[in-house]
Amino acid sequence: MSKTKKLKILVLHGPNLNLLGDREPGIYGKTSLEEINKSLEKLAKELGVGLHAEQYNGEGELVQAIQEARTQYDGLLLNLAAYTHTSVALRDAVAAVKIPAVEVHLSNIYQRETFRHQSLIAPVVLGQVSGFGAYSYVLGLKALVHGLKERKN
Amino acid sequence: MSKTKKLKILVLHGPNLNLLGDREPGIYGKTSLEEINKSLEKLAKELGVGLHAEQYNGEGELVQAIQEARTQYDGLLLNLAAYTHTSVALRDAVAAVKIPAVEVHLSNIYQRETFRHQSLIAPVVLGQVSGFGAYSYVLGLKALVHGLKERKN
Amino acid sequence: MSKTKKLKILVLHGPNLNLLGDREPGIYGKTSLEEINKSLEKLAKELGVGLHAEQYNGEGELVQAIQEARTQYDGLLLNLAAYTHTSVALRDAVAAVKIPAVEVHLSNIYQRETFRHQSLIAPVVLGQVSGFGAYSYVLGLKALVHGLKERKN
Amino acid sequence: MSKTKKLKILVLHGPNLNLLGDREPGIYGKTSLEEINKSLEKLAKELGVGLHAEQYNGEGELVQAIQEARTQYDGLLLNLAAYTHTSVALRDAVAAVKIPAVEVHLSNIYQRETFRHQSLIAPVVLGQVSGFGAYSYVLGLKALVHGLKERKN
Amino acid sequence: MSKTKKLKILVLHGPNLNLLGDREPGIYGKTSLEEINKSLEKLAKELGVGLHAEQYNGEGELVQAIQEARTQYDGLLLNLAAYTHTSVALRDAVAAVKIPAVEVHLSNIYQRETFRHQSLIAPVVLGQVSGFGAYSYVLGLKALVHGLKERKN
Amino acid sequence: MSKTKKLKILVLHGPNLNLLGDREPGIYGKTSLEEINKSLEKLAKELGVGLHAEQYNGEGELVQAIQEARTQYDGLLLNLAAYTHTSVALRDAVAAVKIPAVEVHLSNIYQRETFRHQSLIAPVVLGQVSGFGAYSYVLGLKALVHGLKERKN
Amino acid sequence: MSKTKKLKILVLHGPNLNLLGDREPGIYGKTSLEEINKSLEKLAKELGVGLHAEQYNGEGELVQAIQEARTQYDGLLLNLAAYTHTSVALRDAVAAVKIPAVEVHLSNIYQRETFRHQSLIAPVVLGQVSGFGAYSYVLGLKALVHGLKERKN
Amino acid sequence: MSKTKKLKILVLHGPNLNLLGDREPGIYGKTSLEEINKSLEKLAKELGVGLHAEQYNGEGELVQAIQEARTQYDGLLLNLAAYTHTSVALRDAVAAVKIPAVEVHLSNIYQRETFRHQSLIAPVVLGQVSGFGAYSYVLGLKALVHGLKERKN
Amino acid sequence: MSKTKKLKILVLHGPNLNLLGDREPGIYGKTSLEEINKSLEKLAKELGVGLHAEQYNGEGELVQAIQEARTQYDGLLLNLAAYTHTSVALRDAVAAVKIPAVEVHLSNIYQRETFRHQSLIAPVVLGQVSGFGAYSYVLGLKALVHGLKERKN
Amino acid sequence: MSKTKKLKILVLHGPNLNLLGDREPGIYGKTSLEEINKSLEKLAKELGVGLHAEQYNGEGELVQAIQEARTQYDGLLLNLAAYTHTSVALRDAVAAVKIPAVEVHLSNIYQRETFRHQSLIAPVVLGQVSGFGAYSYVLGLKALVHGLKERKN
Amino acid sequence: MSKTKKLKILVLHGPNLNLLGDREPGIYGKTSLEEINKSLEKLAKELGVGLHAEQYNGEGELVQAIQEARTQYDGLLLNLAAYTHTSVALRDAVAAVKIPAVEVHLSNIYQRETFRHQSLIAPVVLGQVSGFGAYSYVLGLKALVHGLKERKN
Amino acid sequence: MSKTKKLKILVLHGPNLNLLGDREPGIYGKTSLEEINKSLEKLAKELGVGLHAEQYNGEGELVQAIQEARTQYDGLLLNLAAYTHTSVALRDAVAAVKIPAVEVHLSNIYQRETFRHQSLIAPVVLGQVSGFGAYSYVLGLKALVHGLKERKN
Repeated sequence: MSKTKKLKILVLHGPNLNLLGDREPGIYGKTSLEEINKSLEKLAKELGVGLHAEQYNGEGELVQAIQEARTQYDGLLLNLAAYTHTSVALRDAVAAVKIPAVEVHLSNIYQRETFRHQSLIAPVVLGQVSGFGAYSYVLGLKALVHGLKERKN
Repeated sequence: MSKTKKLKILVLHGPNLNLLGDREPGIYGKTSLEEINKSLEKLAKELGVGLHAEQYNGEGELVQAIQEARTQYDGLLLNLAAYTHTSVALRDAVAAVKIPAVEVHLSNIYQRETFRHQSLIAPVVLGQVSGFGAYSYVLGLKALVHGLKERKN
Repeated sequence: MSKTKKLKILVLHGPNLNLLGDREPGIYGKTSLEEINKSLEKLAKELGVGLHAEQYNGEGELVQAIQEARTQYDGLLLNLAAYTHTSVALRDAVAAVKIPAVEVHLSNIYQRETFRHQSLIAPVVLGQVSGFGAYSYVLGLKALVHGLKERKN
Repeated sequence: MSKTKKLKILVLHGPNLNLLGDREPGIYGKTSLEEINKSLEKLAKELGVGLHAEQYNGEGELVQAIQEARTQYDGLLLNLAAYTHTSVALRDAVAAVKIPAVEVHLSNIYQRETFRHQSLIAPVVLGQVSGFGAYSYVLGLKALVHGLKERKN
Repeated sequence: MSKTKKLKILVLHGPNLNLLGDREPGIYGKTSLEEINKSLEKLAKELGVGLHAEQYNGEGELVQAIQEARTQYDGLLLNLAAYTHTSVALRDAVAAVKIPAVEVHLSNIYQRETFRHQSLIAPVVLGQVSGFGAYSYVLGLKALVHGLKERKN
Repeated sequence: MSKTKKLKILVLHGPNLNLLGDREPGIYGKTSLEEINKSLEKLAKELGVGLHAEQYNGEGELVQAIQEARTQYDGLLLNLAAYTHTSVALRDAVAAVKIPAVEVHLSNIYQRETFRHQSLIAPVVLGQVSGFGAYSYVLGLKALVHGLKERKN
Repeated sequence: MSKTKKLKILVLHGPNLNLLGDREPGIYGKTSLEEINKSLEKLAKELGVGLHAEQYNGEGELVQAIQEARTQYDGLLLNLAAYTHTSVALRDAVAAVKIPAVEVHLSNIYQRETFRHQSLIAPVVLGQVSGFGAYSYVLGLKALVHGLKERKN
Repeated sequence: MSKTKKLKILVLHGPNLNLLGDREPGIYGKTSLEEINKSLEKLAKELGVGLHAEQYNGEGELVQAIQEARTQYDGLLLNLAAYTHTSVALRDAVAAVKIPAVEVHLSNIYQRETFRHQSLIAPVVLGQVSGFGAYSYVLGLKALVHGLKERKN
Repeated sequence: MSKTKKLKILVLHGPNLNLLGDREPGIYGKTSLEEINKSLEKLAKELGVGLHAEQYNGEGELVQAIQEARTQYDGLLLNLAAYTHTSVALRDAVAAVKIPAVEVHLSNIYQRETFRHQSLIAPVVLGQVSGFGAYSYVLGLKALVHGLKERKN
Repeated sequence: MSKTKKLKILVLHGPNLNLLGDREPGIYGKTSLEEINKSLEKLAKELGVGLHAEQYNGEGELVQAIQEARTQYDGLLLNLAAYTHTSVALRDAVAAVKIPAVEVHLSNIYQRETFRHQSLIAPVVLGQVSGFGAYSYVLGLKALVHGLKERKN
Repeated sequence: MSKTKKLKILVLHGPNLNLLGDREPGIYGKTSLEEINKSLEKLAKELGVGLHAEQYNGEGELVQAIQEARTQYDGLLLNLAAYTHTSVALRDAVAAVKIPAVEVHLSNIYQRETFRHQSLIAPVVLGQVSGFGAYSYVLGLKALVHGLKERKN
Repeated sequence: MSKTKKLKILVLHGPNLNLLGDREPGIYGKTSLEEINKSLEKLAKELGVGLHAEQYNGEGELVQAIQEARTQYDGLLLNLAAYTHTSVALRDAVAAVKIPAVEVHLSNIYQRETFRHQSLIAPVVLGQVSGFGAYSYVLGLKALVHGLKERKN
């Protein structure tokens, strides 16, 4: 982790999150992904950290993005969406790169289908925030920056 | 859904279906994917609907194709093959785009390994046809067009 | 199976299907059983096959009907309703008579209670059609006749 | 449900209940089915309702009886005995006819074999009374009449 | 059990039942706990028995109340609410005091979440009444008094 | 049980056994049911007991036959076929009539589908014989007569 | 919920949290409960809301505290500790009072014993924050106030 | 299998069967193992076959005995007692030697603890006889000789 | 742990143990709790340690007592009765206070209902003694003192 | 059980216990089996009973030893090690000889792999002691002698 | 399979294996993927076979690579990493191309999380080698070439 | 482990492997155990290590052999056959002696019955080789020697 430079955060959005605002707004809210990214960038500025966001529908591309983060980012803010519940590959990627990560979910995954109650990612991240809509990302970013700063001290 | 124009159907074939005819013919039959597509195009013409078929081996590419169908197609004819049993991302994509969909399988999935008995896709489609070889697609297309026309009325 | 004569199909409807149209129309649709039978008879004529339909509420009577079909019919179109999920006796009957059979369901059984997701009948039939309301029977009959003709060639 | 006429109740006894008094009295008590029916008729008179009782050993006959109740009865008092734990067909029949029903059991089914702890019928009735011997029927009839009168108001 | 004196019944209401009338009336009805207790007292008078009602939110306090009933009451009318499904301590208390008990539930617990289908209390009581709202208590009291009188004879 | 008269045995064959000889001979053998009954009658004569055989496809009819045996027979030789694995009603009937019973199966049910490994009947009979084809009945009859004679002494 | 007055938040700490700082610091951190409460009070002031914190070791006392919040508080910040995984009574209390609630955990419960992976509380709260030590409370309070303000608009 | 010589049968008794007569006679009967062996020898003579019986408490010794039977015996009559439910080694031995075998049990194993309901041996033998006490061996020997003779023809 | 002073032991009895002697003596024996405490005090004197015993029916009170032991006792002798099988809060309390503890049970919990076979407490104590009635406490106290002394050396 | 003579105890050590002291001392302690036996012999002398210890690695040899104890010993002190979790044969042997037995374990089996949490032996012994290293044997012997003397009185 | 030409092997490495050497060396060793490939190429030369290695993070790309191998390679050496445990698509691809394959794992997957104990690939390959670090590949290549040569003879 | 002397390997073959070549050659191949041992001895010579092979049908004898290896051998090559899936005693023995071990299987155990998919031995060995017939031993020996030499450096 870079120690003297500005912290850099990679936000990764998983499959179908590009449809946000449009997709089942009763569950996922009306905010678009672009709006979420903008508000995160604004918050990042306030917190004095760099932030870049990407979205992928493919599991392999997400693995790739996590791997490449190793040399470029200090922290990962992850909403891996559907892959949260099925992807050992993404769990392994997070564990392999050893960059502190935080997991967020828009919906309260514990109020939905049983197969969404299990997260394969949760055991390899710092912590998890779920259920607060777009605000989950805001909290997740704060938690991640808080955790990264604690580590530096 | 376009109401005054000709209905347009997207046929999506999942992983390994490009090997049809060649692959385990005892289970999947001797008809090639190209032959299936041709007979579907012919049937589409008879039914007065447009039809386009694609095949992908990647989960992310299939998610992408389903998402892009939102603005271009009125119905989805899906044989997601192996991903039927494992992909929450594809289930979420189908639920997100809200285009009526029908699920088909060449083989009778209930006569095979236990892990093939569960479909993560079935709960988000109109219905399912399985076990009739290439003819499953024919029936599935008829079911889809029937369902789309019923909705229009 | 008779090879030179007109193919004959027995349609068997299981328990409570006599209430169709009247019973939980949100799940099962508004078409009555009589209307379904009439449209099947019409379709049979078009396909050049004979067709007879019966409905029973009793498991034993359905077993009996399947057994008697052995010497009189070439194919079985089955909607065994509730018994689909609980009857080993009906599964054994279908397996014993060795007449090709197709299983149909009005509702998409994969969207309902867990105990309706399992079919004891599916492993002994050619294939299954579910979720298209009364149109499931139409597709099922086509699938059955298609399968029978393929066998004759 | 008839609103101005006397309420009419159908009592249905399931398999082996015709042996009551005689059959395993340690579990089911010494009262015969005839005696139970008589005391129910007497109570019905006191409550100002009509009551008729039938017993069947066959699942199909019980389905039939429930179906026929649709046009003749206002409420169902059900002890489906062994079928309570295995019959989807009877559950479907009760749900289909939409006549308010109450489920009763002579024995405390929760003190017996594990397979008797589950009732497929309970989710489609008003409520359940179990464990009080012949008096379970008395309470069940009161509950049913109470429920029917509440609905009328 | 006192044999020559008036029978005395202790009614025990478990956690959150003090909110009745106010709490999720769609599930639990609009009658308050006070109203239920009053109607039970009135019924007790009619049946010639004494009756006292208590409500506790704590598992330990309910254990205590059941234990103290040993020397003061002849029967227990129990709605242990949430503890029904989780408390071995209350099951042990009921089994230990050996006072006949009846279990009641306002809602039909078999129509709700899976974890409410199991009662740890049911195997140690005379019987169970569930699903009839406040009337479940009325039936439960009758069942209990009937059971106690039968034992005296 | 009649003590001074000749012992009388009722043989009950369950669903689809009327097709024996004809039905899946690889599993069930080539002997017809009539031939089995004849050889049992012959053996009965040798053993000095009376014997009568019936076959039913309906669960309710088999329950009925077991009930009626109470006053007419001393022992039951049961091959309940498919109902072996699903019928609580038949288990209850056997337990209710209290006539000693023996369970037989033509095929070795432990070499077949998992759902055939469980017998709901086995816990209420003297013992079980399975896997010896038609000869299972011969052994079962000997076992039953042996058990009945032992009880008389 | 009071609409014109300052929002008031009740923070509830469950069993053993009074030992914080002292108890297994490897898992729960070195911050004491008093320090957590103070930092929450400070944050509340910044957010312009009232805040009061209580800790109980007893399930019944926590139920009581949640019930009493109904008339005095606008939001609940809950760390129910061990009861998170076992208490239906607390779930029922939260559902009954209908005050928006947020669930927080100091440790990442998904990295610990399997029985800590299930939360009975999660399905009845707005959302959950876990794994960030004392900072989980900070995020949880922000999420709660954010949610309450959103509801007011 | 020797075809022209007298058939030879090896009877193998598993662990603790040497205590028969003495051990839990309520379950296993009062006949000693010696008496069982004698009656089997007598029956063997009547059937015109040779018979030798051995008892071992060790799993390895039983494996050894089954292996050595390969060159000396034509059939195996097995009561492997406790090892029936736990020994893959004995199942493998029976499958390896390819001598027809019959499995017998003194008690009705389906009326006992759940772990006795499963037989690892049953899928590799001709058939199973259980529940008739010492008479199970008699029936088992008859079944084995019957099966061996059928094979010779 | 105090090193130079006399060791002090806290004995904690869980719910319903105050009824000992009176409660189901077939399972729990005829000795009263007072008698057990006296014999433990006597034994403590012989072993040269201090001992105090308390009994609580409430889970929260037991948590409290374990917490308070931290500053006053060197060892815990625990019979948490019903809470053994259901209380994560008590497990957490024992783990949190870090005082060596020993778990005892009067009955052999492995001969009783399945839900009594699991102890949530066992993984956080030194060891467990079960099945010897009141003598289990005697052995447990010896084990605890032995363990404490070993630690001191 | 001999009533007038000195009680005699057989100590049986199961597989791998001969390696004690040497084998995984972190789990099993540093005391050798010989030292354990010596301390047990010393304690036996103090308690006025005879004691003999044996160790076997084979399941069959342990069955044998338990059987032979029938005529020579009054009590069994058993540490069956790995066979505790897998051997029905040893459970049957203990149940068959009807000599009171006590089960001991060096380690706290409830802190180890899941498959060590289940004891097939526990339901057939007086009680169980686990987790106190070599001292478990000391407590077990005391418990056994206490139990035997109680039976004599 | 080419019979007269030099055998050609395709080595496929799954997700995250490109990080080898760097990634959790305690589990996966310090050898880089490049070093593994080089040593495999060297070994291939010694064995007289051609060898080419590829690594992909995407499931679809691995499916593609396996499909394309059909016309270019004679054997597959597969370490599908995380997809081993979740991918039906890769299993189907291996089964479809019918090229003999061998599965290898660096770590002993049976010493890790439960979800890594199941391989969906194992049932469709010749065999599996796991736990020997980079040397697993060496053994796997030898096994594959051995198998291919055996098939040619 | 001896460091300056020639490494010595003990090969242990489990139950029924003495029948190799003869036993189900479709599964286990046609090579006899003697041939396997000879080829292993030859390979050992080439690798410069000593090798001795033993076969036992008894679990206890295998435990014994593993124990005795402690002072005589540097590595264990194990094919424990059926005991692989059932023996905790052998797992404990391998863990106790602390000699590096490798597990081999002739057949691909993941293509066979479900109970053969689990190995109790795998978690305590270096690694596993399965599915390559007699060649599995060759690979296993290489893996073992490779592992031993790595440890020495």
